Amino acid sequence: MNLILLLNDDFTSEKTVSLEGRRRDHILSIHQAQVGESLTVGVLNGDIGKGLVTRADDHVIEMDISLTTTPPAALPVTLILALPRPKMLKRILQTVSTMGVKKLILVNSYRVEKSYWQTPILNEENVREHLILGLEQAKDTRLPEVILRKRFKPFVEDELPAIAQDTRAFVAHPGTDTPCPSNLTEPTTLAVGPEGGFIAYEVEKLRDCGFTAIDLGRRILRVETAVPVLLGKLF
Amino acid sequence: MNLILLLNDDFTSEKTVSLEGRRRDHILSIHQAQVGESLTVGVLNGDIGKGLVTRADDHVIEMDISLTTTPPAALPVTLILALPRPKMLKRILQTVSTMGVKKLILVNSYRVEKSYWQTPILNEENVREHLILGLEQAKDTRLPEVILRKRFKPFVEDELPAIAQDTRAFVAHPGTDTPCPSNLTEPTTLAVGPEGGFIAYEVEKLRDCGFTAIDLGRRILRVETAVPVLLGKLF
Repeated sequence: MNLILLLNDDFTSEKTVSLEGRRRDHILSIHQAQVGESLTVGVLNGDIGKGLVTRADDHVIEMDISLTTTPPAALPVTLILALPRPKMLKRILQTVSTMGVKKLILVNSYRVEKSYWQTPILNEENVREHLILGLEQAKDTRLPEVILRKRFKPFVEDELPAIAQDTRAFVAHPGTDTPCPSNLTEPTTLAVGPEGGFIAYEVEKLRDCGFTAIDLGRRILRVETAVPVLLGKLF
Repeated sequence: MNLILLLNDDFTSEKTVSLEGRRRDHILSIHQAQVGESLTVGVLNGDIGKGLVTRADDHVIEMDISLTTTPPAALPVTLILALPRPKMLKRILQTVSTMGVKKLILVNSYRVEKSYWQTPILNEENVREHLILGLEQAKDTRLPEVILRKRFKPFVEDELPAIAQDTRAFVAHPGTDTPCPSNLTEPTTLAVGPEGGFIAYEVEKLRDCGFTAIDLGRRILRVETAVPVLLGKLF
């Protein structure tokens, strides 16, 4: 972790924290922090600053906290992603969190295997854990919102018009002739299909909702590669 | 695999192939190909076309091959990458191959653990296997060249000047004020450090060699995220 993310429960007074578990172990083994050293810290959904270590042993890490900076800017994007297979989902949750996506909607699609919706990774606690790992990597504090929509059609017909309204809306779809735009600053909605892509019907439904199909050239990328490439190109 | 990559040894005549092992199993289980169907095929370092299945059983897949298209354009980049830890190396080999990098130089750096150089993933056969998986994903046929350099200083002093000559040369280094450029078409050399980054001495050596330090903003990305983001932005 490039930043130790602090939760409200960590605070023992207005400016002191006490950490156990994963973060204590990480600070001891990786940072090898000793009393008197300062670590980069951030408060969940709050500011960033330094934690001066006042105690570091196998029981607990204690720090005096001073916050000085706001977290990095978010990407102006709502990412709609066909639910990836569980192993990839873990990494993608971390990646989108690291890159500054603040709203992720995981949707069903014809090519999403039904069993993917049963994975324990989708439990609220697990999703949150992977998002937090992504924030700690990025030195960010603002937790993304993750929304699950197990039915494609009602989501696209009933909810998506309001989400996409007043945004540039794109669906990544190999084989279209429109290249991915770059250096956008305006609010954007980006839809990315599953391995194998959205089916034609789904692309049409997204087009009906104002989405423009874009592609990344002839190469077919895995979803976990396509997402950082698309976000990197767009913003 | 979005393309079945064919090797010289697969050809039983000028236009027929016979496949066993991983590709036969994949064609049977994933494509569920039957006699009379056509699959996308490509010849290693050659052209792309269709394979008409003439036999498909547990022993062998046989196809009649007709080649019609050249492979997708390569990225005009030489990628110099501090050797990642083994688990990440596998994915990165596939990613750079998928994205169209044709020359990858894995170098040592102060923050590369010595043990990483011992991983069997660096054996020529294993490197080739991961690169081929990347090509099959991308529908490409041209195998990237991978070069290993276990000593940073002699590589940068003796070999890098000739590699970087007449190219735009960049080193990704968080905390510089120069943002990553975009939409390049000219030959480019890109250096990416290990987790934790190149040390100042290494960045200076690269600067001496004509490299410009660029960054991706305040967020610190994992190497396996930074590489697709940088390649996506640059080209």
